[in-house]
Amino acid sequence: MGSEFIGELIGTFILVLLGNGIVAGNVLDKTKSNNAGWLTITIGWGIAVTMGAFVSGYMSPAHLNPAVTIAFAVAGSLPWASVLPYIAAQMIGAFLGSVVVWLQYKDHYDITEDQGAILGSFATGPAIYNPVTNMISEIVGTFMLMFGILSFSNYDTFPWAGNLVTGALIIGIGLSLGGTTGYAINPARDLGPRIAHAILPIANKGDSDWKYSWIPVVAPIIGALLAVGIYGLI
Amino acid sequence: MGSEFIGELIGTFILVLLGNGIVAGNVLDKTKSNNAGWLTITIGWGIAVTMGAFVSGYMSPAHLNPAVTIAFAVAGSLPWASVLPYIAAQMIGAFLGSVVVWLQYKDHYDITEDQGAILGSFATGPAIYNPVTNMISEIVGTFMLMFGILSFSNYDTFPWAGNLVTGALIIGIGLSLGGTTGYAINPARDLGPRIAHAILPIANKGDSDWKYSWIPVVAPIIGALLAVGIYGLI
Amino acid sequence: MGSEFIGELIGTFILVLLGNGIVAGNVLDKTKSNNAGWLTITIGWGIAVTMGAFVSGYMSPAHLNPAVTIAFAVAGSLPWASVLPYIAAQMIGAFLGSVVVWLQYKDHYDITEDQGAILGSFATGPAIYNPVTNMISEIVGTFMLMFGILSFSNYDTFPWAGNLVTGALIIGIGLSLGGTTGYAINPARDLGPRIAHAILPIANKGDSDWKYSWIPVVAPIIGALLAVGIYGLI
Amino acid sequence: MGSEFIGELIGTFILVLLGNGIVAGNVLDKTKSNNAGWLTITIGWGIAVTMGAFVSGYMSPAHLNPAVTIAFAVAGSLPWASVLPYIAAQMIGAFLGSVVVWLQYKDHYDITEDQGAILGSFATGPAIYNPVTNMISEIVGTFMLMFGILSFSNYDTFPWAGNLVTGALIIGIGLSLGGTTGYAINPARDLGPRIAHAILPIANKGDSDWKYSWIPVVAPIIGALLAVGIYGLI
Repeated sequence: MGSEFIGELIGTFILVLLGNGIVAGNVLDKTKSNNAGWLTITIGWGIAVTMGAFVSGYMSPAHLNPAVTIAFAVAGSLPWASVLPYIAAQMIGAFLGSVVVWLQYKDHYDITEDQGAILGSFATGPAIYNPVTNMISEIVGTFMLMFGILSFSNYDTFPWAGNLVTGALIIGIGLSLGGTTGYAINPARDLGPRIAHAILPIANKGDSDWKYSWIPVVAPIIGALLAVGIYGLI
Repeated sequence: MGSEFIGELIGTFILVLLGNGIVAGNVLDKTKSNNAGWLTITIGWGIAVTMGAFVSGYMSPAHLNPAVTIAFAVAGSLPWASVLPYIAAQMIGAFLGSVVVWLQYKDHYDITEDQGAILGSFATGPAIYNPVTNMISEIVGTFMLMFGILSFSNYDTFPWAGNLVTGALIIGIGLSLGGTTGYAINPARDLGPRIAHAILPIANKGDSDWKYSWIPVVAPIIGALLAVGIYGLI
Repeated sequence: MGSEFIGELIGTFILVLLGNGIVAGNVLDKTKSNNAGWLTITIGWGIAVTMGAFVSGYMSPAHLNPAVTIAFAVAGSLPWASVLPYIAAQMIGAFLGSVVVWLQYKDHYDITEDQGAILGSFATGPAIYNPVTNMISEIVGTFMLMFGILSFSNYDTFPWAGNLVTGALIIGIGLSLGGTTGYAINPARDLGPRIAHAILPIANKGDSDWKYSWIPVVAPIIGALLAVGIYGLI
Repeated sequence: MGSEFIGELIGTFILVLLGNGIVAGNVLDKTKSNNAGWLTITIGWGIAVTMGAFVSGYMSPAHLNPAVTIAFAVAGSLPWASVLPYIAAQMIGAFLGSVVVWLQYKDHYDITEDQGAILGSFATGPAIYNPVTNMISEIVGTFMLMFGILSFSNYDTFPWAGNLVTGALIIGIGLSLGGTTGYAINPARDLGPRIAHAILPIANKGDSDWKYSWIPVVAPIIGALLAVGIYGLI
């Protein structure tokens, strides 16, 4: 269990370090990567997931996502006793990852005054706030993620091939389904950094948008369970 | 046959969900991925095809395209009895995929007033309307697709490698040959969503451009058959 | 010999169809891919080479480039008797590929008035005309191509892996070394389409810049031979 | 030892030729790749590392980076006697690579008047000068590089697969962590070209920013050692 815990923690740490790093580099003032665009952000997140999987996959199953962990437990592929420790490791890793992003871009956070940009480099937010459609968006996105992961298991690949294909899937979800809510599709990726945003002494920060925060926690779990259900039917 | 039918249906559903999703994210108002550009769209469609192949390839041959299905039947690689069920599954999958894209981007469809943009996120249309050259464009694009698929079969790859290479081919066709008609190169990908566009209660929608609709149905079939013919000669 | 000849012809045809297609889509008026940018062009050319290699590699060694063919003959890997037939096949393939690009984008060629853009979708030209430095640029680019190809042969890969890696190398050469002369790095890719430009009845076309035309023929051969020489030393 | 020395020299030469080439193509006046953007630069550097690894990996371990060499020596994977020769080879290769970039883009250097752009195509510089946070940025970036490399060794891949995955990692580091200091993450990549900048008779060049030059030498070594230490703990 110890190495699995470490694996999920380190993997989610790297996932959020690289993932929120690409957002910070895009939205904060005076970075060299300022306004590099949506394709850049989605490729950055895709590589973040691939690298998170590489640094953890030899220790743990590299879920790096509480929705995926819960879905695999429901599917019978993970003992229920592992669920809470995995989620704890993922939350700690995601929190620490966003703390290091803040250190990495400290000078740029200090001069950025756009509160929405600052929050956006920690947690997701909807382009148009509407709890019903935002829920649908995150459910569809996470359904795609989990349905893809379950489908990949039918192919006789190498572990490293799976890491690359999952990265491509993340890029695809971001490109095709992410334009609405910013594709959290992972409760730890969203909630861990949102807590960091609330705690850290960031200059010019606004509120942490707690009103929206439950959607990227609840919807991904529903989406992943839906994928397990439909995958089980076919 | 049942699992093959399901495979073609699910695969084409995912193909159109991700493929039309990237277009919707680019052309609809106030999305985070607005105006992300042609490379973004072509990469999105490439990943859409790769993921459509992954989620179906363990159940069916993952044609996901009536032109490919008919061409393989003519080439003798698919029993003729499978052709109509395959095409039916592909049409249903493509129709449902575009319905979910509409749900996913519902709030953005509601505020978008550009009828061309709305139709473009369902079906293809030519940059310059000219039935003769538009036919040529779709024939050349689908020839490239089918000729590539036939060529890949000469290499001893893994199934997952073929999925990735086909995705790269789709990106290449989009980049190099798609600038004229938007590269339907697949009757189901175009006609299924066009029917959805005609039926769904989309705010601000215009007509479904039925005048053009036969070209992305007929031309891809001609192009795929041409590829089978020329490939057979060499 | 017959299938090798066909292989080199078809492979170079696809190479130029997709390669010049991406340029035409970028520079001609009213295309959907207009002004998609340098990364788009280089990725398009990379996929063009990869697909050219896939459609020919099971019939011929997929040189698709007279400079590579001559260099392999000098290195002793190809009988000298094959050199002229290979080059003839590559020239015919490149010529035909650019003819089909013209058909594909016919309506857009008809409305485009920029003579430089039209020529650029057939053959390369320098950003700053200077025979000495333009020669150096094409020598360095083709050295990189040939040196990479020779190095890849030390790895125990699959044929399809080599096709992908060579495509990545082409993208890299375009990104890093192509900003000066447009990286012909292949006499057939440049001369074949230039002849097509001179012959085809293109509306608004200017001269075919024959003054520059010898550089993308001579320099790539020098660059490829230099790579064989230096690779032999180490 | 001889072939290892040659391997590290050639590999770092290609690394810097392609890596600084993409920067030169972006920042110098009148290139065809002018202002192609951050994603373009990061993909260019990723391919540069992959190709540097391919051209050297059959002769040497393809560190191409003194920080990586020192870290492997500390980790016990490389004899200490190899460290200085490796670093010398890497420095010579990086110096020569940037000399050829200057030759390749000679006409464009001659007309470019922006001294910062010229220096930027040789060595890195911070977006906001601050020795403490600049050190942190380069430490975090190189930690990510070395931690990734160490993690990859747990997977049973092919050598060429490792070359591709490392290239993806470099793209990820550039996208997510490079917006602050331009991700030198390699003392030879930064110092070798900076010496070339100081020596070469470049028109319009300014000073070589020696004040900053120690950070991209010292910080990467610290970051790589940190990765070895933390990796050893888990």
